[in-house]
Amino acid sequence: MTTENRYEEQLQAAIDGIRPFNEAYARRARQHSDGLTKPPGSLGRLEDLAAQLAGITGELWPELSRKAVIVMAADHGVCEEGVSAFPSSVTPLMVHNFLAGGAAVNVLARQAGAEVVCVDVGVAAELEHPMLLSRKVMMGTHNMAKGAAMNREQALQAILTGIEVVSSQAEQGVRLFATGEMGIGNTTASAAIASVLAELSPEQAVGRGTGISDEALAHKVKVVQRAIAVNDPDRNDPVDVVAKVGGLEIAGLAGVYIGAAMRGCPVVVDGFISSAAALVALKLAEGVRPYLIASHLSHEQGHRLLLEKLGLQPMVQLGMRLGEGTGAVLAFHYVEAALRLMQEMATFQDIGLENS
Amino acid sequence: MTTENRYEEQLQAAIDGIRPFNEAYARRARQHSDGLTKPPGSLGRLEDLAAQLAGITGELWPELSRKAVIVMAADHGVCEEGVSAFPSSVTPLMVHNFLAGGAAVNVLARQAGAEVVCVDVGVAAELEHPMLLSRKVMMGTHNMAKGAAMNREQALQAILTGIEVVSSQAEQGVRLFATGEMGIGNTTASAAIASVLAELSPEQAVGRGTGISDEALAHKVKVVQRAIAVNDPDRNDPVDVVAKVGGLEIAGLAGVYIGAAMRGCPVVVDGFISSAAALVALKLAEGVRPYLIASHLSHEQGHRLLLEKLGLQPMVQLGMRLGEGTGAVLAFHYVEAALRLMQEMATFQDIGLENS
Repeated sequence: MTTENRYEEQLQAAIDGIRPFNEAYARRARQHSDGLTKPPGSLGRLEDLAAQLAGITGELWPELSRKAVIVMAADHGVCEEGVSAFPSSVTPLMVHNFLAGGAAVNVLARQAGAEVVCVDVGVAAELEHPMLLSRKVMMGTHNMAKGAAMNREQALQAILTGIEVVSSQAEQGVRLFATGEMGIGNTTASAAIASVLAELSPEQAVGRGTGISDEALAHKVKVVQRAIAVNDPDRNDPVDVVAKVGGLEIAGLAGVYIGAAMRGCPVVVDGFISSAAALVALKLAEGVRPYLIASHLSHEQGHRLLLEKLGLQPMVQLGMRLGEGTGAVLAFHYVEAALRLMQEMATFQDIGLENS
Repeated sequence: MTTENRYEEQLQAAIDGIRPFNEAYARRARQHSDGLTKPPGSLGRLEDLAAQLAGITGELWPELSRKAVIVMAADHGVCEEGVSAFPSSVTPLMVHNFLAGGAAVNVLARQAGAEVVCVDVGVAAELEHPMLLSRKVMMGTHNMAKGAAMNREQALQAILTGIEVVSSQAEQGVRLFATGEMGIGNTTASAAIASVLAELSPEQAVGRGTGISDEALAHKVKVVQRAIAVNDPDRNDPVDVVAKVGGLEIAGLAGVYIGAAMRGCPVVVDGFISSAAALVALKLAEGVRPYLIASHLSHEQGHRLLLEKLGLQPMVQLGMRLGEGTGAVLAFHYVEAALRLMQEMATFQDIGLENS
């Protein structure tokens, strides 16, 4: 059996292991929240979220205080086409910043009481740090404008890495996940994935990333068009798509979603790149869907359309476009709010008023 | 001098005491945030918020951990027209719920580390509780569909109450405020205020409140039209508007905004009713504007248009329609996030990369 075949089997086993959503518990949560001291439905999405969390976990108000944002880092060969405002050398610098606790995601994670788990799944530099999970599949992808970003075996390995990391975190007691990433060039790869899997035009899918000019934006669209033309990815085969025009951290995050669903844990989706990865995961395993929680609407132009294709509605609109998991971690407060409301609010009966 | 004249003078003195916004500090905050390890502007509204907080307080990252939501409660004579899904008797029950800590706003305030300050500015029931601030101006308003909801002196007294409550809280060390309210019937009064002061049609301004039927909605529009026709409020005189077609808690919240601006404290605006009160405050004192922070977009239909008229952009979209200050308290997490990012993020220099 080849390594590739072994990986395919492992992925299929993970997908087969996804836990079904518990509709009965979701209904019970709704019944409970309808009896709380407020007009039914007046807490809006927080009530939906409470029902979703109950359905995911099979508990009315699960204990989800142990939480982590999984930040997958990797580099992109397509950067040699000049698609980003920053050079690839920023990726390892930012990984060090995550490990030192100085990046935006670290600050927001500390505020939310969450761990930052940083994974090197393909940074194009030697990295070593006691806190870093070193799972390097390769030293960055190849330039997708000239050929496949990686081969199928590498894509599978990256997806399995995401599954493995989440499983290991869940074994250590983490119950709530968020996705994050770092990888100069990764809005280009995400736009290519969105073009193929969400059937958006490259013009719709490509945005300014870290902040490029109009001219650079037009060029970035052409690069995405070329990557798709050169590689001809099979839209019915998500592994083929993420291998040919994707990225290692995107494949890794697809694995994070699958792993979370397998472990019965909710997972909050960050911005554009994390959403592209969610699309890959959903195309691989529709059973992932009920485990996904949307967080913010990114300023990156393709994000709104991508969320629509995913059937996800963002809760937060801060015009952010940083990635790293920053938007997802901000939404942790709302996951906590939904659970606390269920647990701590008085019922109409408590205050001597029948629910009308 | 009449009591009314004395109140007018006190209000004018408060308005004259509003502290100017410190543009220099807002600029310094932006300079600082441009040097943090992220593409400039990529934290979106959180960067705007950090600049606003610096401009409000004259400190680069002010200490705002002492925070409170001021929940003003009052009743509405217009309820006898059948405009609400709930009877007025729910107002005092909910006040007791706030005082016992069992309402949604209590739960969310505990999560955010904020106090709930409950003020009876006109509940139509005798209320006593050691935690309640009893500042009853009258036992609920009169039915505005038949005449003025209150007289001018009462409206001024309610506004001054809001100023006094915030001042006293600020003296006790509270540095960050949110507005909240309870008052069955108060979306009707708020819609009337929005119609007059924001020049919306009653059809645009009136929504379903706690959840009324299509038929009741059409009736509510007619009640608002009648209230405006009967009272003919002067749109150039916000006190006249809030007296004739407003409510005691709405006038009180207008005072909260003025008081916060006077004390140099940021104040987070909750949903539709709090936004109507903010409009009254702005018409009284344009200097209040830089102190206002929008929180969520309510499901109540007039809220979006009202926020546009206020020039405020919501950060959160959870489809909530509960009031109480629930949306505003949820936004406290983002105020804290903005300040923490300023203080705790590494700079490009720290990580050995010049800001490009």
